[in-house]
Amino acid sequence: MAKTQITAEPGIPQIVMTCEFDAPRDLVFRAYTDPDLLQQWLGPRDLTMTVIQNDVRDGGKWRFVHTDAGGHEHGFHGIFHGTPSPDGIVRTFEYEGAPGHVSMETLTLAERGGRTLVRTVSSFQAVEDRDAMIASGMERGVHDSDERLTELLARLQAG
Amino acid sequence: MAKTQITAEPGIPQIVMTCEFDAPRDLVFRAYTDPDLLQQWLGPRDLTMTVIQNDVRDGGKWRFVHTDAGGHEHGFHGIFHGTPSPDGIVRTFEYEGAPGHVSMETLTLAERGGRTLVRTVSSFQAVEDRDAMIASGMERGVHDSDERLTELLARLQAG
Repeated sequence: MAKTQITAEPGIPQIVMTCEFDAPRDLVFRAYTDPDLLQQWLGPRDLTMTVIQNDVRDGGKWRFVHTDAGGHEHGFHGIFHGTPSPDGIVRTFEYEGAPGHVSMETLTLAERGGRTLVRTVSSFQAVEDRDAMIASGMERGVHDSDERLTELLARLQAG
Repeated sequence: MAKTQITAEPGIPQIVMTCEFDAPRDLVFRAYTDPDLLQQWLGPRDLTMTVIQNDVRDGGKWRFVHTDAGGHEHGFHGIFHGTPSPDGIVRTFEYEGAPGHVSMETLTLAERGGRTLVRTVSSFQAVEDRDAMIASGMERGVHDSDERLTELLARLQAG
């Protein structure tokens, strides 16, 4: 089972995450950009994820909402910078519960022997913003997502 | 004459710039957002600056072009995140000569006794991107801009 390595160095306002999946790059890219697929893996298992908008093009907006069992909604949105492709995705990221705190995600997908290494660099405006993101419990969401994406990629390749 | 202090710490993918202007905050905000005013001060003196677009609202795009004496154009663009106000401006920044290398600028304007301290934090995807920005000769453009903005703010207050 893929498990993301999360690196957050002291004093540097970034989080670097790497994870290798047993699937070709084009399929991993689809899983990261196709709304129907995204809804099946992104986020903690106990939240329902809804893709409100995902306009995968230069300047296009994305907005996702996670809903908990009590019906509380947590929205996230951002804007793609440059044309997303299997080579990479650059997008901004803002949690609607903390407006004005914007980070930028740079994803790169590298294929090696049919497996794909996903590397995500999140760049924050301040180390405090980065630390708040980690303190929010993101690690649980990331590791649930790893498992769910691993399962989804296996299903897609079996099907 | 105002002069921007530029700080770029080793290993940290950011540039922090601070500069104090002898003008109230609302006027400095206008100078940073009104296209007619921006064109009068932003960039090196030997380039002509044209505001192609400056949609100062959440999700709005901006695009500026600097043209040199030989007619060569250098374009820059980005997107505002959140509603710009005298409290602050958050926007992405991309030089069109190096697509895919996107930074995020957070400007805050603080007024003290009729003077305004402008603090800009530029967050880059990598230290290499930050160093490339510095190596591009940005300091000359920043200091020309300081002088030109100081002169413009004086004219606006005299007028």
